[in-house]
Amino acid sequence: MDPKIDTTDGRILAAIDLGSNSFHLGIARAIAGDIQPMHRLKQRVQLAEDSDDDGNLCPAAIDRGLECLKQFSQRLSEMQFDQIRIVATYALRQAPNRYQFIEQARAILDHPIEVIPGREEARLIFHGVCQNQVVEQQTLVIDIGGGSTELIIGQGHTPIELESLSMGCVSFQSRFFPEGKLSSKRMKRAILAAEQQLELLQQRYLRTGFQAAIGCSGTIKAIALLLNDGDLSAPIHRQSLQQLARQIGDCDHVDQLPFEQLAELRRKVLPSGLAILLACFRQLEIEQMQYSEFALREGVLSELANQQSHLDIQARTIHSLQQRYQLDTRHSARIQASAQQLYRQFEVGKKRLERWLEYAAALHEIGLQVNYRGIHKHGEYILSNANLSGFNTEEQCLLAFLVRWQRKKLTGCPSPQLQMLSNSQLWPLLIALRLSIMLHLGRRHHIVLPQLQQQAKTLTLTFSAQLSDDDLLVADLEQEQQHLAELGWKLQWQ
Amino acid sequence: MDPKIDTTDGRILAAIDLGSNSFHLGIARAIAGDIQPMHRLKQRVQLAEDSDDDGNLCPAAIDRGLECLKQFSQRLSEMQFDQIRIVATYALRQAPNRYQFIEQARAILDHPIEVIPGREEARLIFHGVCQNQVVEQQTLVIDIGGGSTELIIGQGHTPIELESLSMGCVSFQSRFFPEGKLSSKRMKRAILAAEQQLELLQQRYLRTGFQAAIGCSGTIKAIALLLNDGDLSAPIHRQSLQQLARQIGDCDHVDQLPFEQLAELRRKVLPSGLAILLACFRQLEIEQMQYSEFALREGVLSELANQQSHLDIQARTIHSLQQRYQLDTRHSARIQASAQQLYRQFEVGKKRLERWLEYAAALHEIGLQVNYRGIHKHGEYILSNANLSGFNTEEQCLLAFLVRWQRKKLTGCPSPQLQMLSNSQLWPLLIALRLSIMLHLGRRHHIVLPQLQQQAKTLTLTFSAQLSDDDLLVADLEQEQQHLAELGWKLQWQ
Repeated sequence: MDPKIDTTDGRILAAIDLGSNSFHLGIARAIAGDIQPMHRLKQRVQLAEDSDDDGNLCPAAIDRGLECLKQFSQRLSEMQFDQIRIVATYALRQAPNRYQFIEQARAILDHPIEVIPGREEARLIFHGVCQNQVVEQQTLVIDIGGGSTELIIGQGHTPIELESLSMGCVSFQSRFFPEGKLSSKRMKRAILAAEQQLELLQQRYLRTGFQAAIGCSGTIKAIALLLNDGDLSAPIHRQSLQQLARQIGDCDHVDQLPFEQLAELRRKVLPSGLAILLACFRQLEIEQMQYSEFALREGVLSELANQQSHLDIQARTIHSLQQRYQLDTRHSARIQASAQQLYRQFEVGKKRLERWLEYAAALHEIGLQVNYRGIHKHGEYILSNANLSGFNTEEQCLLAFLVRWQRKKLTGCPSPQLQMLSNSQLWPLLIALRLSIMLHLGRRHHIVLPQLQQQAKTLTLTFSAQLSDDDLLVADLEQEQQHLAELGWKLQWQ
Repeated sequence: MDPKIDTTDGRILAAIDLGSNSFHLGIARAIAGDIQPMHRLKQRVQLAEDSDDDGNLCPAAIDRGLECLKQFSQRLSEMQFDQIRIVATYALRQAPNRYQFIEQARAILDHPIEVIPGREEARLIFHGVCQNQVVEQQTLVIDIGGGSTELIIGQGHTPIELESLSMGCVSFQSRFFPEGKLSSKRMKRAILAAEQQLELLQQRYLRTGFQAAIGCSGTIKAIALLLNDGDLSAPIHRQSLQQLARQIGDCDHVDQLPFEQLAELRRKVLPSGLAILLACFRQLEIEQMQYSEFALREGVLSELANQQSHLDIQARTIHSLQQRYQLDTRHSARIQASAQQLYRQFEVGKKRLERWLEYAAALHEIGLQVNYRGIHKHGEYILSNANLSGFNTEEQCLLAFLVRWQRKKLTGCPSPQLQMLSNSQLWPLLIALRLSIMLHLGRRHHIVLPQLQQQAKTLTLTFSAQLSDDDLLVADLEQEQQHLAELGWKLQWQ
């Protein structure tokens, strides 16, 4: 058996998913790299409710969310750092004031909260679905959340298309069915609005194609329950969706809906969720859909059970960007090796952080695609905006940050507050990268690295060769000395 | 003979080059697509002198520049629009307050002033050099200007490498030799600083390689004159450059320099120009260099003589971007054809502007490389920052602008003030593009275009088919109606 899997076997794992509609806690046991769900908790927090026009969470929603996390935290008290992962989706992705919530949440859970990009959410959903069933045929997976809808086409364990659209049952509810008002016109408008969003990916998804459709999460579950009298194993048919939409459109208000089996809060967002689902059926020409009990949470748990697989995905993402942007991998390998060697001589050098040097070195020239001039800024732009499978928002920011400040002036360099590492850990990473790039300038290949000595914020480089022979290197060191002084670091050499 | 060339034969052409150190006017006759220089005027305006730290031109420099243009304008009085081209380089490229100058300059010359990007300047310099001699071998061309230095490797008529570095004899003079102070240390520092800039391209240029080196413009001319006793046909050798640098470094002040044959203003920037040239020789391993009388101005004149070649270069640039970014050319051809058909029904539709629809349609999906989400913003970023051969700065802005506002909300859409077209010409271009993209949404291929009728800022689309059959199209039209209202345009349909 793979020893990497073995080490995690039998461990208890927890995943929390902070959605726009509900918060979920899932607890599972890791068995041979697989997960065995043990316990679930769900609370309809409606975090996105009453957000202002910019998406700022309202104070009452924040309080409800924190209250829920206090309850969850009681289940987590004895778990270790690497047994828990907490991911946040649309509502927190969008909210400008998310840090108000995240900081308090972090204090309650004593664990970092990872905001994940939409396509990363989509990837994890598909990964979750795959834990529950074998995805033999090319399959479309749809997850309608409170704020976003993820659409994935994949086969085996490999996603082929990943998208996340900014439409969800909570946001559509307040937009098209405010105060619970219903009408056939409202229903039609909601469906059309969803179809307009889908227009953007329709052609691509139809061209990629799929032979089966799977739906997951609360909205689709509620619809499946309604349409098939509580039988979740029966498929959802397009015709019955259309019927249901007509039935709902004939009412004037949510209170008139007959579906007593649904909780009141779920009933409220049923019309909007249905509109989105029906639009998906129409635009993507789906005839029927199977419900899957597994989704995002299970995807997260599964990657916790086999952490190597998560790092593998990150490595694959970096590699595929190197390919796509035709980067000089031999040069970046040199930059990486030197950066690593320098970094290990810092006092705080930590092995688990070294991968950031690997990633940043691998992609430091990605901006070349746009222009050599300003390459570091273009690199930041590309990495801030690209889809990076396996990276959460903070990790993506860190990567873009390292690439942005890889060279040249540090004037205006911000001091980011990250959850995963402190700034006293960040600067050594950045400085090791900068020194490495500087020493290899002009693509000097056969350099003898200096020894590095750190004392607080003073760095001394000791070169084995006579420096006076290399005016240009001295000039580069002097320039870097000035740049680092901007961060309050002192660089000297001998 | 090619009729395109024939039509311009015998015409008198004028090019003005607004450099950081001097302004030049060149007048030539077009003969069979070639140029025959007839007249030259040069004035050391020193436009970049006493610029502030942000590069803002000082009022005295602006006055000197305008005064010079008044003199130039007397030579241009009877020339037509397509006989004149005025290009501005580093000083105006960099100056935030350039429009203060450009507006007044435009009023004096009654002709648009084109600010050209550094690599476009490099391309035109190489093109100019090629008018004077056959570039048989792979050749390095260097042009040291007041604010920037262009380095090109090319062969035949094709540039292979194009770079523009932000160092020039005027900026280096004030940085390393303020108030005319000289010393061997100052000389060494200036050479090192230039070498540091060259480090960034050194390896690439050496790998590309060249068998000959050509230098052009004032700095290199002055050095060639000095070193070879006025014989411009003799080459500049590295050794004599080094000797000259030592000789200058031994003086304490520019006034002590013995070179009486040089004008005082040229003498002042000789040490800095020499430092840059020597750094080029060292970093790029040049042994000797030939001087060329032709450069930027002749490149501009030559493209004026054969305007089709200029448009061909633009078209080639667009095509090569399509290739490099692997764009769907069939789809963009459909977008272009529809946009063009709609555009021609606007009152102001002008044939010469139609190429902007062609270019924008060709590249409208270029942002896909970064991410589908926000594709229009990524497209703007890429096009604003890319090297676009054959495009001046304003043309590059226009292209980026059309791609940025191709779809979605127009909130915050600026109202650019362009020299080449009025805003009342710009909006029909943009709207035709938007309507075309909207009508092809979801990659609808076989659409029947509506008739377009414009009355002032009201547009009426007349569809041949029954619109009520296509709810989605109506929803898209309604959305576009709202967007266009932001620009003050009214969209209606029937």
